[in-house]
Amino acid sequence: MLQRCRSLRVFFALLCAVPLAAAPAAATQPPPLVTQGDPDRGIAPCSGCHQPNGGGSEAGAAARLAAIGEQYIVNQIENFRNGNRNHPVMSPWAKELTDAEVKALAAYYDALPPASNAVVPPNLKREDGQWLALYGDWPNRRLPACQQCHGPLGIGAGAGFPALAGQPYSYLVNQMANWGTGDRGGDHDGMMRAVAEKLSMAEAQRVAAFYASLPAQRAIEVAAEIGSGERVPSAADLTPPGQATAAQPPKDAASEERLGSPMPHRGTAIDHQGPTPAGRDLAKGASYFRPPSRTERPEDEFGEMVAMGESIFSNTYSHEVSGKYVGNTQVCEGCHLDAGRLAGASPLWAARINYPAYRKKNDKVDTLVERVQGCFKYSMNAQASEVGTVPSAESRTIRALLSYMHWLATGAPVGDKDIPGRGYPKLEKTADGFDPERGAVVYADHCALCHGDNGEGGYAGTAMVFPPLWGAQSYNWGAGMHRINTAAAYIKANMPLGNYIELTDQQAWDVAAFMNSHERPQDPRFTGDLAETTEQFHGSEFDYHGTRKGPDGKLLGEGAMMPSR
Amino acid sequence: MLQRCRSLRVFFALLCAVPLAAAPAAATQPPPLVTQGDPDRGIAPCSGCHQPNGGGSEAGAAARLAAIGEQYIVNQIENFRNGNRNHPVMSPWAKELTDAEVKALAAYYDALPPASNAVVPPNLKREDGQWLALYGDWPNRRLPACQQCHGPLGIGAGAGFPALAGQPYSYLVNQMANWGTGDRGGDHDGMMRAVAEKLSMAEAQRVAAFYASLPAQRAIEVAAEIGSGERVPSAADLTPPGQATAAQPPKDAASEERLGSPMPHRGTAIDHQGPTPAGRDLAKGASYFRPPSRTERPEDEFGEMVAMGESIFSNTYSHEVSGKYVGNTQVCEGCHLDAGRLAGASPLWAARINYPAYRKKNDKVDTLVERVQGCFKYSMNAQASEVGTVPSAESRTIRALLSYMHWLATGAPVGDKDIPGRGYPKLEKTADGFDPERGAVVYADHCALCHGDNGEGGYAGTAMVFPPLWGAQSYNWGAGMHRINTAAAYIKANMPLGNYIELTDQQAWDVAAFMNSHERPQDPRFTGDLAETTEQFHGSEFDYHGTRKGPDGKLLGEGAMMPSR
Repeated sequence: MLQRCRSLRVFFALLCAVPLAAAPAAATQPPPLVTQGDPDRGIAPCSGCHQPNGGGSEAGAAARLAAIGEQYIVNQIENFRNGNRNHPVMSPWAKELTDAEVKALAAYYDALPPASNAVVPPNLKREDGQWLALYGDWPNRRLPACQQCHGPLGIGAGAGFPALAGQPYSYLVNQMANWGTGDRGGDHDGMMRAVAEKLSMAEAQRVAAFYASLPAQRAIEVAAEIGSGERVPSAADLTPPGQATAAQPPKDAASEERLGSPMPHRGTAIDHQGPTPAGRDLAKGASYFRPPSRTERPEDEFGEMVAMGESIFSNTYSHEVSGKYVGNTQVCEGCHLDAGRLAGASPLWAARINYPAYRKKNDKVDTLVERVQGCFKYSMNAQASEVGTVPSAESRTIRALLSYMHWLATGAPVGDKDIPGRGYPKLEKTADGFDPERGAVVYADHCALCHGDNGEGGYAGTAMVFPPLWGAQSYNWGAGMHRINTAAAYIKANMPLGNYIELTDQQAWDVAAFMNSHERPQDPRFTGDLAETTEQFHGSEFDYHGTRKGPDGKLLGEGAMMPSR
Repeated sequence: MLQRCRSLRVFFALLCAVPLAAAPAAATQPPPLVTQGDPDRGIAPCSGCHQPNGGGSEAGAAARLAAIGEQYIVNQIENFRNGNRNHPVMSPWAKELTDAEVKALAAYYDALPPASNAVVPPNLKREDGQWLALYGDWPNRRLPACQQCHGPLGIGAGAGFPALAGQPYSYLVNQMANWGTGDRGGDHDGMMRAVAEKLSMAEAQRVAAFYASLPAQRAIEVAAEIGSGERVPSAADLTPPGQATAAQPPKDAASEERLGSPMPHRGTAIDHQGPTPAGRDLAKGASYFRPPSRTERPEDEFGEMVAMGESIFSNTYSHEVSGKYVGNTQVCEGCHLDAGRLAGASPLWAARINYPAYRKKNDKVDTLVERVQGCFKYSMNAQASEVGTVPSAESRTIRALLSYMHWLATGAPVGDKDIPGRGYPKLEKTADGFDPERGAVVYADHCALCHGDNGEGGYAGTAMVFPPLWGAQSYNWGAGMHRINTAAAYIKANMPLGNYIELTDQQAWDVAAFMNSHERPQDPRFTGDLAETTEQFHGSEFDYHGTRKGPDGKLLGEGAMMPSR
């Protein structure tokens, strides 16, 4: 499967073996390079490998280009030119193409309907790779799910994270192998290399089979339906009724051992392969509580509520049941990683066993219901929601979330305040304090690709993939995360997602200060007077509410405009 | 201290050593026997030992008779006559007195203000015995607290349970010794003998010191204040400010080992000293979860809510915070014994770790908040309360109760459905089924003394001591306890209080049927039509709603009259 086209001869031999798929009924005429190539420059027609419908090919291990994103295609040609990618055919041709030709080709392919010519090898099934694609392997390898960046059902999220759905299986396997060996580079902060190095070859094949099996057009349609149903989009949505597709973990994930050896890589392992924050704790002898596996969820009425709770947790703002209480595009899982399972990212099992508890913020003992309602009030900015307030204690939203939390904590000892992995590790102050201007540089270098140049978050179609960090769609001035020390500690322990690089303490402090120096929705405790509100609820050194520390020097805390959703 | 007056000579010698207390300014003239005795019959003046104020004496180990209850005094004279009590002085004199004289004496003493001449030995302090008096020792010995029968602060509850407050220390110690040895009898079903046999001599002395130290009049006043404050009435209420009286367990209770050896008893230990239902489980190897000791309650804001929760739990209907949601005179502790700690009596720690959970009753997953609200709706009949509905999820009542439950479950594993001691043991059906008429006999023999001839419950002053079992002040037709199988299982495992006798399975079934064959407050789910309500929510073989199985043959389920409170 992993044989690669080492020469034009082999390449063309493979090409001839592939029946050409029907050309799309595109309104626009394809550029001549697509259909005819340029024999004078030795360039064969693009459609030879990528096929007339732009859906790529298995035999050529050629990418689906149709609807893949104009900027992404332009970027890849550049990668072939500058050596970040190396391919015996594409590398020399990329250098022959003019920028105008590249632009025209990119525009043409992006405008095609999202066709796919992928074929999954008969020994693999879609379900085999679904687990890693949907859930990753956070507890063992801090491995994010593919969909956490590439969007639900791998439909792609912006220029940084291309669609995986409907990509040829052989292309996907090759690329993961190339990331792992270093044959392919240019990934932001080495994030794909970090992912690929954590995968075994067998796992890469399974994940490739999962995405290759997804019909690209249907995946986009289903992903767009998020918010109209109670389900997490999954492969099951794409399967004819009656065909079993329950998400079962592959043996590796279920047994919490990886399947086979890691993929080979050459050269020195990059240093972000060292212990992650959680790994450091583990090295010190901490062992983390393990919530039950998703496969252990009971098949009864309670299990149904647990499932609804997890679905709400991961799709809060768009979920049919909970969406009406959310005034922005946030989801619980945006902060509580691995759907609330991950140690060091405020795991739910630790909260479940430690409430009711006294909270200084409210100066009273809060129940778990009230604590969760607090998330809606502040992080979800319920005031701007359809309902305009938090879900009641009796609502399905609260009952489902509590059921989910309860189940995740199965076996955890009630009241264990020191359970390892609770909350996230406190971050000590640095000698240089924190500075939003320094933080702006950190943000641009390491955060903007996902969260957007203006903190607006990242989307796959209409689905939020990376949480907005400031502005109208972000948490409001009452959320704990608006405090710089809280944000710095969270960022240090958990960002970038999967810790493919590790920020220094100083970077974490500075970028937290930058993030929280922007306007965001009003504090729901706003008294009507900014100075008074600052005095009553803010005013610490870690809190820019009521200051002019933001990039534009305006008074912070007036609250961002609330657009209608 | 335990030397007893073995002869008249010794008795009178002691008597002369006691300075006479001042006579009360009673409106009624004392009968001549009180002040002069009857030399012709060899009867000395009652006031010689019981003192002119009726407060008893330490030197004579003579009971306080003032305000002790007319019927109780009559009963004791009868006990001296029939040999249930043996006393060198009182036994012969009791036989000399006419019934008219007894009645006059009893009326006179009962009408006196509740004086006390008790003196606590200098080596003992009030606090030493407070723990056993207030809490007993349920987990180790299934030993009820003294106040569970004798009322708050030992002010007495009806003719069956005399006042202990202000009784002379020496009298109380002697009586406990007599119960234990069998020198004193006539206690209903042997309940005091069962209690005394579980106490060591040192414990009996401590408990005696506690009650002897309580000013009887003040105890009555404080007990009457129940419901006007948030506190459990305790010795602290009777102590001048500044004097430390925090309830600390004696070393025996804290270390969960009894202090010293059991008191000596002679003859064959009565068979109800065998393993209790909980004990039987323990004998089979079960070990019960132990909630933290009351002394471990944290001294912070959370601890304050825990304390409030326990107070609400034990005083629900009369508590300043929760009383307005209770439509009868029930308290949570009425069913959940030992303030929700006792294995086999639906302990709170087992509930805490098993909610949210699906409940067939509501056909949905209920949170713990909703489960507790259900208790208010059904067992507390909130519909007839001042507020008219259950406490909200945000109320102090719910937050305090959840805090208390959470703390009780400290260390228990979340979701352990099979935790030993959860709920109460299921009771198998018997060959003879169940029958309210047979149950009426069981009730009269073993239950009526505490719960009243008409199921109206038992009171100490205005304070409910024994829960009403039917009628307007009882749980309503929606409560789980109205089901005969549920009630039978609970009764078998937990009744009579402390299991000083054990009912047979048949007795438990029959008396449960009898109890639940009476009218009680309306099911809050009442549709407006009895037959329809029966069909929708009742109708099982264990449910008399909608039948005519009651003693008066009336249709059951119309709901008892709701008196204003």
